[in-house]
Parts: sequence; C-alpha cells; structure tokens
Amino acid sequence: MDILVFFIFLAACFGAGATGALFPPGEWYESLDKPAWTPPDWVFPVAWTTIYLLIAFAASRVASLDGSAYAMAFWSLQIALNALWTPVFFGLKRLREAIYVLALLWLAVLGATLSHFQLDLWAGLAFIPYLLWVTVAGALNVSVWQRNRSSEA
Amino acid sequence: MDILVFFIFLAACFGAGATGALFPPGEWYESLDKPAWTPPDWVFPVAWTTIYLLIAFAASRVASLDGSAYAMAFWSLQIALNALWTPVFFGLKRLREAIYVLALLWLAVLGATLSHFQLDLWAGLAFIPYLLWVTVAGALNVSVWQRNRSSEA
Repeated sequence: MDILVFFIFLAACFGAGATGALFPPGEWYESLDKPAWTPPDWVFPVAWTTIYLLIAFAASRVASLDGSAYAMAFWSLQIALNALWTPVFFGLKRLREAIYVLALLWLAVLGATLSHFQLDLWAGLAFIPYLLWVTVAGALNVSVWQRNRSSEA
Repeated sequence: MDILVFFIFLAACFGAGATGALFPPGEWYESLDKPAWTPPDWVFPVAWTTIYLLIAFAASRVASLDGSAYAMAFWSLQIALNALWTPVFFGLKRLREAIYVLALLWLAVLGATLSHFQLDLWAGLAFIPYLLWVTVAGALNVSVWQRNRSSEA
C-alpha cells in the first residue's frame, strides 16, 4: 500500500464530499417532514468521513494488484455519483431525481464491494459500511420524497 | 482492453457530466460579460463528450496493467473534481470558488496524463485534449470572474 496513492484517493473523496459543505442542509431540509428514524445531523459528516477513509484505504490496497480493473472502474463510478447526489438533493431540491442517483450509486458501491473482495479481504470489508450507509440513505431519500412531494423544486 | 471496464469508466464520466444537464447555462450565464474568445455554447457538450470517450478509453487501456495505481488514483480524483465544478459555477454561481476547483482539476488531469503516459502511449495521448480543454476552461473561468465580480452569488 502506497501512502501517496492513499492520499490521492482520499482527495477524490473530499472532492466529492466538498458538495456537502457547499450545499449544506439549511432551512429547507429542516422544514422537510422526515421519518422518526432519520439520523441526527451530526451523524452524516461522521459517517461520510469514516467511509471516505475506509474506501481510500480499500482503493490503495488493491490499485496496484493484478486484475484490479473492475475494482478501479467501480471505484471511479461511485465517486462520480457520490459527488452528484448532494447538488441534486440539496442544490436542486429534486428529491425524486436524487433517488435515481442513489439507486445508481448503490449499484456502483455493490460492484465496488464485490470487486474489492475478489482482490483483497480487507479492501472488501472496508466497503461494507459504505454499502450499508447508502442503503440507509436510499431508504431515507425515498421516505423523505414520499412525505414531501409538494416541497420538490 | 475490456469493453465492460470501458463502459463503467464511461458511466463515471456521464455521472460527472450529468451536472451539465442538471445545472444548464441559463439567463444568468447568458448575461455574464464574457471574453471575445469564449467558445460558442454548442462547443462545450461536444468537447466534453469527446473528452469523456477518450479518458474512458485511456482508463480501460491501463486499468489492468501492472503499476497503474497512480493512474487510477488520479483518474478518480479528476472525475470527482469534474463533477464538482459545474454545481459550484452554474449552481452556486460562485465564480471564484469555481476557479479553485478548476485549478485542482488541472493538477489532477496533469497527474493523470503523466501517469497514463508512463503506462501506455495511447492512454497518455488520449488525455492531452482534456488537459488543453481544462486549461482553456480555467482561463475562461478566470476571465469571467474578473469581468463579473459583482454578479457573484
């Protein structure tokens, strides 16, 4: 594992994560009708920071291995879709299109998880929290959409 | 070169490129004071589509090669920053922050170009139009910022 490779992948994560700082949840998000199981606000940056560290670790473990083409392709796909979700949800307030982005992100993360497992046990395990979190985020996005169809932009 | 790997990388490109459809140039962009050398609107989607095809080709050529860790890390970094720029410029209308994103994108594309050249001549060459285009886009972003400081959000 090359530490500089780790930091370049981590920079990609924080490039995607910068959308969270640029499109912060404001009055609009506060005013949405959310399900009782919605995590408190502080959980989101903690979860994402943890996930970003884990998937940068995973990528840097497998990037130099033989046969890592699928793992790298899925890693690239998930980070692009990850960067896309926040501007669609918080920027455009398009709750339904955000669900489509999350559905594609979930598939990309599933592909990344499986292809990392094929190469390295620890890299695969490092993707599990991400897959769980995107599942929760997807369920939350669907629930919020159903409860607030009239609030959509 | 694995054609499925190519299409996953291409999907990542169109995930990033979807920001262009979601945050289209509208009245605000039309009303900006732009330099005489600004390309006409139709050039942008043509340039990006060409670049996306080229860099998906480049990634799929090198992804399975030994020692492709840096190439893949820089590829991931550039696609995350690529997805970030449009929401910052067209969504938030923050012309100055958009310059910072483009400066980081330029460095990521330079890193990707050099690391792809190290592995494969055609993959490196495929990145050259991207590097040139981001240079033009950066110059345009700086010029537009200087001419329209009062139009910033």
